[in-house]
Amino acid sequence: VCVSLLFSSKLHDLNEPLIDHAEGQDFLNEAFKVIMDEVLCKGTDVKQKVCEWKEPDELALLLDLELRATGETQHRLLQRVRDVAKYSTKTCHPRFFNQQFAGVDYHSLAGQFLTDALNTNICTYELGPVFVLMEAEVLRGLRQLVGWAEGDGIFCPGGSISNMYAVNLARYQLFPEVKTKGLCSLPKLTIFTSPESHFSVKKGAAFLGIGTDNVILVKVDDRGRMIPEDLDEKIKLAKSQGAVPLLISCTSGTTVRGAFDPLDHIADVCERHKLWMHVDAAWGGSVLFSKQHTHLMKGVDRANSIAWNPHKMLLAGLQCSAFLLKDTTNLLKRCHSANATYLFQQDKFYDMNLDIGDKSVQCSRRVDCLKLWLMWKAVGSDGLAERVDKAFIHVRYLVEQMKKREGFQLLAEPEFVNVCFWYIPPSLRGKEGNADYHDRLAKVAPVIKERMMKQGTMMVGYQPLGDRVNFFRMVVFSPLVSQKDMDFFLNEIERLGSDL
Amino acid sequence: VCVSLLFSSKLHDLNEPLIDHAEGQDFLNEAFKVIMDEVLCKGTDVKQKVCEWKEPDELALLLDLELRATGETQHRLLQRVRDVAKYSTKTCHPRFFNQQFAGVDYHSLAGQFLTDALNTNICTYELGPVFVLMEAEVLRGLRQLVGWAEGDGIFCPGGSISNMYAVNLARYQLFPEVKTKGLCSLPKLTIFTSPESHFSVKKGAAFLGIGTDNVILVKVDDRGRMIPEDLDEKIKLAKSQGAVPLLISCTSGTTVRGAFDPLDHIADVCERHKLWMHVDAAWGGSVLFSKQHTHLMKGVDRANSIAWNPHKMLLAGLQCSAFLLKDTTNLLKRCHSANATYLFQQDKFYDMNLDIGDKSVQCSRRVDCLKLWLMWKAVGSDGLAERVDKAFIHVRYLVEQMKKREGFQLLAEPEFVNVCFWYIPPSLRGKEGNADYHDRLAKVAPVIKERMMKQGTMMVGYQPLGDRVNFFRMVVFSPLVSQKDMDFFLNEIERLGSDL
Ligand SMILES: Cc1ncc(COP(=O)(O)O)c(C=O)c1O
Ligand SMILES: Cc1ncc(COP(=O)(O)O)c(C=O)c1O
Repeated sequence: VCVSLLFSSKLHDLNEPLIDHAEGQDFLNEAFKVIMDEVLCKGTDVKQKVCEWKEPDELALLLDLELRATGETQHRLLQRVRDVAKYSTKTCHPRFFNQQFAGVDYHSLAGQFLTDALNTNICTYELGPVFVLMEAEVLRGLRQLVGWAEGDGIFCPGGSISNMYAVNLARYQLFPEVKTKGLCSLPKLTIFTSPESHFSVKKGAAFLGIGTDNVILVKVDDRGRMIPEDLDEKIKLAKSQGAVPLLISCTSGTTVRGAFDPLDHIADVCERHKLWMHVDAAWGGSVLFSKQHTHLMKGVDRANSIAWNPHKMLLAGLQCSAFLLKDTTNLLKRCHSANATYLFQQDKFYDMNLDIGDKSVQCSRRVDCLKLWLMWKAVGSDGLAERVDKAFIHVRYLVEQMKKREGFQLLAEPEFVNVCFWYIPPSLRGKEGNADYHDRLAKVAPVIKERMMKQGTMMVGYQPLGDRVNFFRMVVFSPLVSQKDMDFFLNEIERLGSDL
Repeated sequence: VCVSLLFSSKLHDLNEPLIDHAEGQDFLNEAFKVIMDEVLCKGTDVKQKVCEWKEPDELALLLDLELRATGETQHRLLQRVRDVAKYSTKTCHPRFFNQQFAGVDYHSLAGQFLTDALNTNICTYELGPVFVLMEAEVLRGLRQLVGWAEGDGIFCPGGSISNMYAVNLARYQLFPEVKTKGLCSLPKLTIFTSPESHFSVKKGAAFLGIGTDNVILVKVDDRGRMIPEDLDEKIKLAKSQGAVPLLISCTSGTTVRGAFDPLDHIADVCERHKLWMHVDAAWGGSVLFSKQHTHLMKGVDRANSIAWNPHKMLLAGLQCSAFLLKDTTNLLKRCHSANATYLFQQDKFYDMNLDIGDKSVQCSRRVDCLKLWLMWKAVGSDGLAERVDKAFIHVRYLVEQMKKREGFQLLAEPEFVNVCFWYIPPSLRGKEGNADYHDRLAKVAPVIKERMMKQGTMMVGYQPLGDRVNFFRMVVFSPLVSQKDMDFFLNEIERLGSDL
């Protein structure tokens, strides 16, 4: 009775807010220390594990995830922060090579924390005066690297959605009535991309109502780059079958092999057929910072739109994905606007163009620009270029070392920072002629992967591709990596696979 | 020459990583202190401004946003952190009433920081072992409040995208071939919603290729609630015109008036016509925590899907938006999957069902569950219920006070925590009969808004609605608010509008 009276008196006392700032700030201080120790110090220490593997059942028990009626003590909650940190994969670890993101940039992370604390929606100037201006400036900076003096853009929750934006804008530009009438009155629209493009092109086609069958796959060369002549033929074929070719989605830095489609040649084809040229540079876009490697994207300035994820190679932290547009006719807003009067009042006392929310298909939109801006300010374009250049230098070293070792077989010379290779264990060397060679080789990577996960020494991904059986895709770009991590990587693969 | 040599030696020395942990961690420590002081202490202090209004040109100069070739000193960067904080709108301020988010929960914020530091993608178990299990548990907890013992779900980057998911699933369930063939071979699909539903229903219809004209608006009653009888008629009419009714998007807590559509009655109509029933509870869903107010969503368990944004009323921080599904047939994954082999290998050593990425149309997906989980653990379901109940109590107080003051005129008794009202300035009182009354009244809110922004004392939004001219929408739910903030609010509106 006493407790419930107390409870209800707190509830009904309108002068007692339900949150205690001193207590809350104290918790946040303590949690910050745990994050510093467990994630940022231990997590980046090569003597510590990349992951602390637990079977799902065991982990669920350890974490005690259940949500209950009553709250817990600060002490218990801090222990929870520690546990979450402990059992999470350390993507900031120098030996995390599993994904197209890795490492940690402290300025970017500070930008994330500030974003979280300021907790706002970037849809209007009154909600995010700093961020509306900052996003414009960051987009301008990125467009400048593309070679565009003008244009538009927006940050999206990931490259997949950026790729969808491209398709939605292309079809609106061609058939403005699609916004109101939908696709059911339009001819069949087709999208062209390479079989090695990211799966989001197909996911997007399904989501936008275009259908995955209408994503036409253009042949690639032996390094995974789109063949412009085949594109030209596929476009003609689609037209002859009554479809309307809409957009070509080129890739700069494919997900698995890191291939760069030849943009200049593709641009010629696009111009000839009047197609929207989209460049999915989610992964490879960062080469634009580098004087030495920017040539990989020669012709990118001829594109209509670009998806570029600073949350990948640039370490901006999830999520940071820029969608860039050459358009200067306010296409983005015309295509996406709903003109909600509760947000975008026409009788505001400031310039309505600063209320950028209607350029998005979202309503609440996180501030994704601050972390990139702060990092960019911290190291400058030169510093970011240096990171890109260094990644290529690391890759060159790794490839040289692989060639010196017996068990490593490259799929091809890497064009970018993806190093794709098979590890041929001792028992398979010299057996390429055997009938079961490929079946046995296919089983090597999964076993090595399981062992490395369970021992927690490092992480790298593998996959098959077409008729190529399972191979590793090593990606090297984190500015935390040093030569000894690459040496370790090679030794470790050998150690884990020596008995296979 | 010397500098460039140094530069290039650092670049080529593979044993020297480009990031210095000690320096970086020191910066993060200092930035954290700034965030604590400038955002969390000053930002929640009623003696400080909610916003420091600057004209865009002036603000751009102050911030020096330009991105340059060279980096800056730590000292300069810390000053930038301070500036960003200073000129940003303080959404955590107790007098920020502008939006459907406000305040700060320190446990949730700690969860955000931890999420950022761990920087991972929740698409596979190996990348986020803790988070894959945690997301499932949080979704289970939310579904339990809905009354579903089973089901599915996922966190989306916002309620707008959650609403799109509902439409995409509904059409896939009805016409599975839409995924491959697209909409151009299907009949015209229609969506039903009220004119007061969120604009994302229309944005989604455009984005998904359905078209905004095919969003059919169902009449509402004088409080803004959908009229089931009109829904029934509109469905019949659409059918008679050859369209295929697909989905009804009900709203629990409309954006402006906070109205709850009568779910139980709507469910009857849905069942009769075999339509997908989606409930957009992005705003109102949190009443499900409250024993006293859960009746507002009676019938929600009969829905097929629900969008619920803990980043709004529950203070989970942007972005935290749950999409809940009743389905137990893996519809979400069947509809969205692309089966990318580089992420979702079939020969993994653990249960593939833990690789949940293919349920999403995204690839990289932020961890949005941790902050909600940690907050929920901290205060329990009872604590969250208390916050909801207290919000209603605050609203009751505010409404009583308004009735006692001459200048405040409610649109209607609030059903939820949105208090919509006109402020009638002295010069307009008793002039309801005048021909220019509504024109003059329409100009009141924008002027008061401009004044409050420029003085920075508080923030509240306004909008017109149908033939109702500009009125304020006050939303009261932050657990930081106390009675004196509401008294201040009323006094301040009077002060700012007394000469109008
Ligand atoms: C080439 C490419 N495009 C697009 C994407 C999707 O980006 P996001 O993961 O941000 O959705 C990826 C992600 O791996 C990618 O590699
Ligand atoms: C009723 C309703 N639904 C959906 C949304 C959209 O949610 P989000 O802003 O997360 O996209 C809102 C946001 O204001 C809303 O009020």
